Amino acid sequence: MTHFIAQPKQGVPFVSVQTMAQLINKLGIENVLQQLTKRLETDFTRWQQFDKSPRYAAHSPEGVIELMPVSDGELFSCKYVNGHPKNTFRELQTVAAFGILADVDSGYPIMISEMCLLTALRTAATSALVAKYLAPKNATTLTLIGNGAQSEFQALAFKSVLGITDIRLYDIDPSASQKAFNNLTAYGLNVTICNSAEEAVKGAHIITTCTADKTNATILTSEMIPQGVHINAIGGDCPGKTELDAKLLERAAVFVEYEPQTRIEGEIQQMRADFAVTEFHQVINGQACGRESQQQLTIFDGVGFASEDFTALAFIRDQLIATGQYSLLDLITQQADPRNLFSVLTAEHTQQESVA
Amino acid sequence: MTHFIAQPKQGVPFVSVQTMAQLINKLGIENVLQQLTKRLETDFTRWQQFDKSPRYAAHSPEGVIELMPVSDGELFSCKYVNGHPKNTFRELQTVAAFGILADVDSGYPIMISEMCLLTALRTAATSALVAKYLAPKNATTLTLIGNGAQSEFQALAFKSVLGITDIRLYDIDPSASQKAFNNLTAYGLNVTICNSAEEAVKGAHIITTCTADKTNATILTSEMIPQGVHINAIGGDCPGKTELDAKLLERAAVFVEYEPQTRIEGEIQQMRADFAVTEFHQVINGQACGRESQQQLTIFDGVGFASEDFTALAFIRDQLIATGQYSLLDLITQQADPRNLFSVLTAEHTQQESVA
Repeated sequence: MTHFIAQPKQGVPFVSVQTMAQLINKLGIENVLQQLTKRLETDFTRWQQFDKSPRYAAHSPEGVIELMPVSDGELFSCKYVNGHPKNTFRELQTVAAFGILADVDSGYPIMISEMCLLTALRTAATSALVAKYLAPKNATTLTLIGNGAQSEFQALAFKSVLGITDIRLYDIDPSASQKAFNNLTAYGLNVTICNSAEEAVKGAHIITTCTADKTNATILTSEMIPQGVHINAIGGDCPGKTELDAKLLERAAVFVEYEPQTRIEGEIQQMRADFAVTEFHQVINGQACGRESQQQLTIFDGVGFASEDFTALAFIRDQLIATGQYSLLDLITQQADPRNLFSVLTAEHTQQESVA
Repeated sequence: MTHFIAQPKQGVPFVSVQTMAQLINKLGIENVLQQLTKRLETDFTRWQQFDKSPRYAAHSPEGVIELMPVSDGELFSCKYVNGHPKNTFRELQTVAAFGILADVDSGYPIMISEMCLLTALRTAATSALVAKYLAPKNATTLTLIGNGAQSEFQALAFKSVLGITDIRLYDIDPSASQKAFNNLTAYGLNVTICNSAEEAVKGAHIITTCTADKTNATILTSEMIPQGVHINAIGGDCPGKTELDAKLLERAAVFVEYEPQTRIEGEIQQMRADFAVTEFHQVINGQACGRESQQQLTIFDGVGFASEDFTALAFIRDQLIATGQYSLLDLITQQADPRNLFSVLTAEHTQQESVA
């Protein structure tokens, strides 16, 4: 029971959107992204301790609902996350996520947290961590293709972790690029809005593709990309959703998080089953090479793995312990005798007439 | 978006333990059990519409954490549930559960609910529904072996759905039987506490085994059980946890919920892989025989299936719509422009200095 944030009988700590936003603002978003990147690095070094499985995915015509469970034997985490590109047209999020952290020893949930913001942070921190190992040396320019919900988090993670100074934006919807431009003005970055993907990738050391269409698109063709670049391809993350030209993958050294999941969901779903990839934890742990030369083309085929959410939730858990700032949910029954569940119905506070 | 209880921008409806207890008390527990049994019957008739998979289980030395997702194409549900027998010794629940209901069309969660009470209700209602089809005619006596958290719910479901009048209790811990006895006095049942399992099963028409040890136990031996009885075996529900003598299974017609899951978790994990079982939905839908004679020994090898939780959560959803009684969780970001997730951090209410 050493993992509890609050005593189990007090309730389950809950991190609302507002609590999360206040926490990020209090610590500073660049500080949070740096700390998260460090914790991701630490957790990737103990990759073998995680009980891994491809995520559960329930596909429907409009999108997908996924569950991403993982455990390190001490803590268990699970993220609920959807992906519904058309939600944007009805003023809903494409991605609406929340997470559960639980104590393995007792099986009790110890935290429920919003994960719309937290997923954006962990995705950006993962991108930055991977780029720290794979991007060409002295990279200063990042291109962001797809300027939706993830874009500002990407820019700030690459700035704070890798020292990126120049951001080039492109989106098929110019208002998305303008939105990202406006949000990033306060952070001391040189931001340029471009009129095409071709224009945007010019001079880039790192290119993040993060588009939302659930389709096999070709956001980057092989012709557009010179050698020496690092591509951070994070938008293609479910069956039937890809962003890169297969020819580009053929030219590159391709890195993934967890191969069994990426074969199903990543850019490499286009490739034959034996197309060579390297799991990123091997690079961190010195079991495989990262970038081999400044001329090499590297691709991170990132789909998001449950252990990254685990790391992010464990980070938030530690902040809650430090600050004591959370509310408590009356989610689990707390009767004096565990075997007397029925007594919950006869307890006095459940008898009062409810007020509509 | 027709499945939402509240407008998505208002927050996610939350059913606390207290709200659930008040709801059950307001409707009356026997009424709730009857209604749930009817809805389970309806949902078992449309078994083919559910997207089914064996549950995800993360096993540890002390217990198991499970996720039970299912969808009918309109609604998606997932239950988080653990099983930690030793929790009882530290005043925690053996089973601490909660559930999520989501709208498939948008992927948004539409309800978060406690499921300690709700799981007890749905398990009891499922037992009663199955017994309605399989128990001998004119059954009046129910034996409950294992008098923990589930026992009163079992007794009241069998009373309200099948008209059971006599309950015989046995538990290795006499205080558990006394607890069940005390809780049931108000409900007009003839309740007898017995000193052994042998004594308890005498004269029983239906026997529920519901013990919690994570071990291959033999709660009922073949010698103890005459022909004509219906056994509702619901305590053995994970690998290495069984309650019945294999010889008893050999003598009986065995019914299960979802065969792939029960082969892993149920009593039949003791049997060879081709040991004949019937999925219960086939009985309801007239595709298979239920009880064939008053002399037949029938066994329901119940492990709990995700569709039962789906039914229970959908039932609660309808009650929330009818009563408007729930709180709202600030779980999903609600910015005006879905692509402008970053704006959540700059919104005014997230800037204020938090108070510890």
